[in-house]
Amino acid sequence: MVKIAILGFGTVGSGVAEVLTENGGLIDRRVDDLVRLKYILDVRDFPDSPYRDCFVKDFSVIEQDPEVDIVVETIGGATVALDFTTRALKAGKSVVTSNKELVATHGYELLKLAREHGCSYLFEASVGGGIPILRPLTSCLAANQLEEITGILNGTTNYILTRMIRAGLTFEQALQEAQEKGYAEKDPTADVDGHDACRKICILSALSFGRQIYPEQVPTQGIRGVALEDVAYAGSADYKIKLLGRAIRRPEGKVCAFVAPHLVPGDNPLAGVEDVFNAIAVRGNAIGDVMFYGRGAGKLPTASAVVADVIDIAKDLKRDHRNDWEEGAPDLVVSPDVLTSQWYVRAEATAEQARAACGEIHLLARSGAPAGEVAFLTGPMTEPQLRKRLEGLEVRSLFRVLA
Amino acid sequence: MVKIAILGFGTVGSGVAEVLTENGGLIDRRVDDLVRLKYILDVRDFPDSPYRDCFVKDFSVIEQDPEVDIVVETIGGATVALDFTTRALKAGKSVVTSNKELVATHGYELLKLAREHGCSYLFEASVGGGIPILRPLTSCLAANQLEEITGILNGTTNYILTRMIRAGLTFEQALQEAQEKGYAEKDPTADVDGHDACRKICILSALSFGRQIYPEQVPTQGIRGVALEDVAYAGSADYKIKLLGRAIRRPEGKVCAFVAPHLVPGDNPLAGVEDVFNAIAVRGNAIGDVMFYGRGAGKLPTASAVVADVIDIAKDLKRDHRNDWEEGAPDLVVSPDVLTSQWYVRAEATAEQARAACGEIHLLARSGAPAGEVAFLTGPMTEPQLRKRLEGLEVRSLFRVLA
Repeated sequence: MVKIAILGFGTVGSGVAEVLTENGGLIDRRVDDLVRLKYILDVRDFPDSPYRDCFVKDFSVIEQDPEVDIVVETIGGATVALDFTTRALKAGKSVVTSNKELVATHGYELLKLAREHGCSYLFEASVGGGIPILRPLTSCLAANQLEEITGILNGTTNYILTRMIRAGLTFEQALQEAQEKGYAEKDPTADVDGHDACRKICILSALSFGRQIYPEQVPTQGIRGVALEDVAYAGSADYKIKLLGRAIRRPEGKVCAFVAPHLVPGDNPLAGVEDVFNAIAVRGNAIGDVMFYGRGAGKLPTASAVVADVIDIAKDLKRDHRNDWEEGAPDLVVSPDVLTSQWYVRAEATAEQARAACGEIHLLARSGAPAGEVAFLTGPMTEPQLRKRLEGLEVRSLFRVLA
Repeated sequence: MVKIAILGFGTVGSGVAEVLTENGGLIDRRVDDLVRLKYILDVRDFPDSPYRDCFVKDFSVIEQDPEVDIVVETIGGATVALDFTTRALKAGKSVVTSNKELVATHGYELLKLAREHGCSYLFEASVGGGIPILRPLTSCLAANQLEEITGILNGTTNYILTRMIRAGLTFEQALQEAQEKGYAEKDPTADVDGHDACRKICILSALSFGRQIYPEQVPTQGIRGVALEDVAYAGSADYKIKLLGRAIRRPEGKVCAFVAPHLVPGDNPLAGVEDVFNAIAVRGNAIGDVMFYGRGAGKLPTASAVVADVIDIAKDLKRDHRNDWEEGAPDLVVSPDVLTSQWYVRAEATAEQARAACGEIHLLARSGAPAGEVAFLTGPMTEPQLRKRLEGLEVRSLFRVLA
C-alpha cells in the first residue's frame, strides 16, 4: 500500500483528494498497488468533509509516520512550504507539488535534497496546470537539443487579452470581469504583472537547458501597458497581442529568458489560444515545433497533473524519478536586448517622423484614430537599436513581434 | 554501453542514425551511459554512407549478438517486420518502432511477447510522428478516466484539405500538388482513404481504453468524397472540413471508434491545424481537454520520437517499460451509428424539400450555387435517423459536425 499526505486543503489540495477518490479504482490498477490518502494537513477544521478522519494540524505527525510515502504540497508560497518540503525530503518521503514559486526559487536545492535522500521531487502541475509539459520535455523530447520555448503561461492574462480583443473591453473592464468570474485574484499583481508567467518560464528553462534560472534574472513585463488602441492596430494586420514567456538557448550554454507582451501572427497556433487556455510551443533540433495546449489552471486539471506525478512515483517507489538541473549562476542569463526582431510601435507622431526615425516601416490603421497618432511595424532590429531610433518621439506602446 | 541495431535504412531508419550521431553527446548524458549504433540491416549497399561499417544483410547476426540491447524496426508493413520483431523480442531484445500497421494489427501479441521475455516494445513514433502523445496518454494523464480522443492523424489528407480550403484547389489538384511536394505517395490510397488514420486511432484507442482494437473493426471513410462545394458551404458558416479519427468510451467498457471527414467549428483548436500538421485532442474526466500539436511525419521528427523511446529503454534496461493492453474482442467496438450529432448535408433538392425531410435546419449558402442545390446543417440525430429522413432526396455529401 502507498500512503499519501496532502498539505493544504485549498482548491488544489481538495481537488487531489477528489481525484484520488473518484478515480481510485483505475489509479490502483495503474500503480498495481493500493494508493490511499492517510493525512490532510490544514489549520482549519472540516467537520463535514468526507475526509474528516484524515485531518491533522501538526506536520510532524506526517513527517514522523514511516507509512507516508508521498507528500503532496499544495500550500503555495516559499516559506512554510519550503520548510515542510525540506523536512519531508529529509525524511525520505517523495514530494509532489503544484507550487511554481517554490520550484522557481528553490528548485535546485530541493532536487539535490531529494537525490541525496533517495526520493523524488516532482512538479508537473507547476506549469500549465493539467497540460502535460514537463514530463514530455524531459522524456519524449529527450533526443532533441531544445532550442526555444514560447508559452502562453498565464490563463488570467490570456483571458483579459482575449476579452479586450473580442469584446473591446478595456484592460480595467476585462480585469474586473475576470475577477467576477473567479479567474483573477482580488490582488491580481502576480498574474497581471507577469510574475506568475515568469516563475513558469524559469521552470521550463531549467528543465530544458539544465540549470536553475531565478525569477529575478528574467526581465518581466506584464499586460497593464496593453491598450485597446494596440489591440485594434495589431488586429488590422492579423496579429493578436499575447503575453509570452520565452526561453531561448544561446551560444556558450547561456539562456535568454523573458516575459513580455508580443504581437503574434494570426497563422501561428499560439494566436488561436483564447480565454483561460494555456499553450506551450517547444522547438527542438530534430522534432521541429510541437505545441501543448489545455487548461492552465483549475481544480481538477491541476489535480490531474499532481496525481499523475503521484502515480509515477507510486509505481516504483525506489526508482529514481528525479527531474534534475544544475546550479544557477549570475552570468547564465543574457538580456533580451541581444535579440533581433520586428517591433510594433505606437507613438504621438506623424508617419513622416516615424519613417525618418525607423526607415522602412509598415504603417497600421485603426478606425477612429486621432490625428497625430501613428502605429507601425519596424524591420528587424534589437531593442537598444530601436530605442535609439525612437529618441525624441512620444512613444506610447512598444511590443516585440513574434517571428 | 548500450548497443543499437536499426532494421531498414529508409527515411526513418537513416533519420534515427542521424539523430543518434548528431545528438550523441546529449543522449549519452541523458542515459548516463554510451549509446552506440552497432548494426544497420538493409538489403541494399551503402558504400558511401558514414555508417558503412554497420551494415549487415542477415537478421540472424543481430538476433544472435548478445551485445545488441535495442532493435529499432523501421521496415514497415506486417510481414518481414513481424517476423524480425518477434525474433528480436524472443531473444530478449527490446524493440522500438514507428510501424503503425504492425502495432495496430499485432500489438497485443507483441506486447505479450515483450512481457514474457522481460523486454519492452515501444512505438511513440507510430502515432503523430514526433508529437509526444502515447507516453503523455499513459503517464501524464494516468490520473484520468479517458473519455474521448479526437485527432487529425494524417498529414497528407490535412495538406490536401488545407489546399482545397485556402487555395480553392479540387481534391485531384491538391493531391497532385501533395505528390509533387513529396507529401503524398504515388499510390495515395493508405492516406486518402483513411487507412493510415485508422491504424493510428486503433493504437490510441488501445492505449486509452486498455484493449486491442483492430483496423477492420473501425469504420473508415477517407476524403475522396469531399468536394469544393462542401468546403465552400462549410466555410460560409465558419466550419473547416477535417479528416478526424475518433475514439469514444462507451458504457460497459465498449469503444466507439471511426474515421471520417467532419465539419469542425472555427473556434475549435483543431480547426486551426493546417498543412501537414497533426493534432490530437484528448478529454479526461479530471483534466478536461488537452491538445498535442506538431509535425505528424518527416524524417527527423519521427526519428526524434524513436530515439526518445530508445533513451527511455537505455536509461534502465531492466525496468519494465511496457505499454500494455488486453486482448481485443469482436463485440468490443460499437458502431458510430449510436452517436447523436448535427450533420452537414448537400443534396439536389429545394430548401422546402430539405425542411420537409429534416425539420428545423440551418441553410448554408455559397456563391455560384446552381439552382436545385441545397446544403444545410441538421439538428442532433443519429446517422440511421438521418438516412431515414433523407430517403428520396439525391444526397451528394453527408458529414458529421464535431460538437
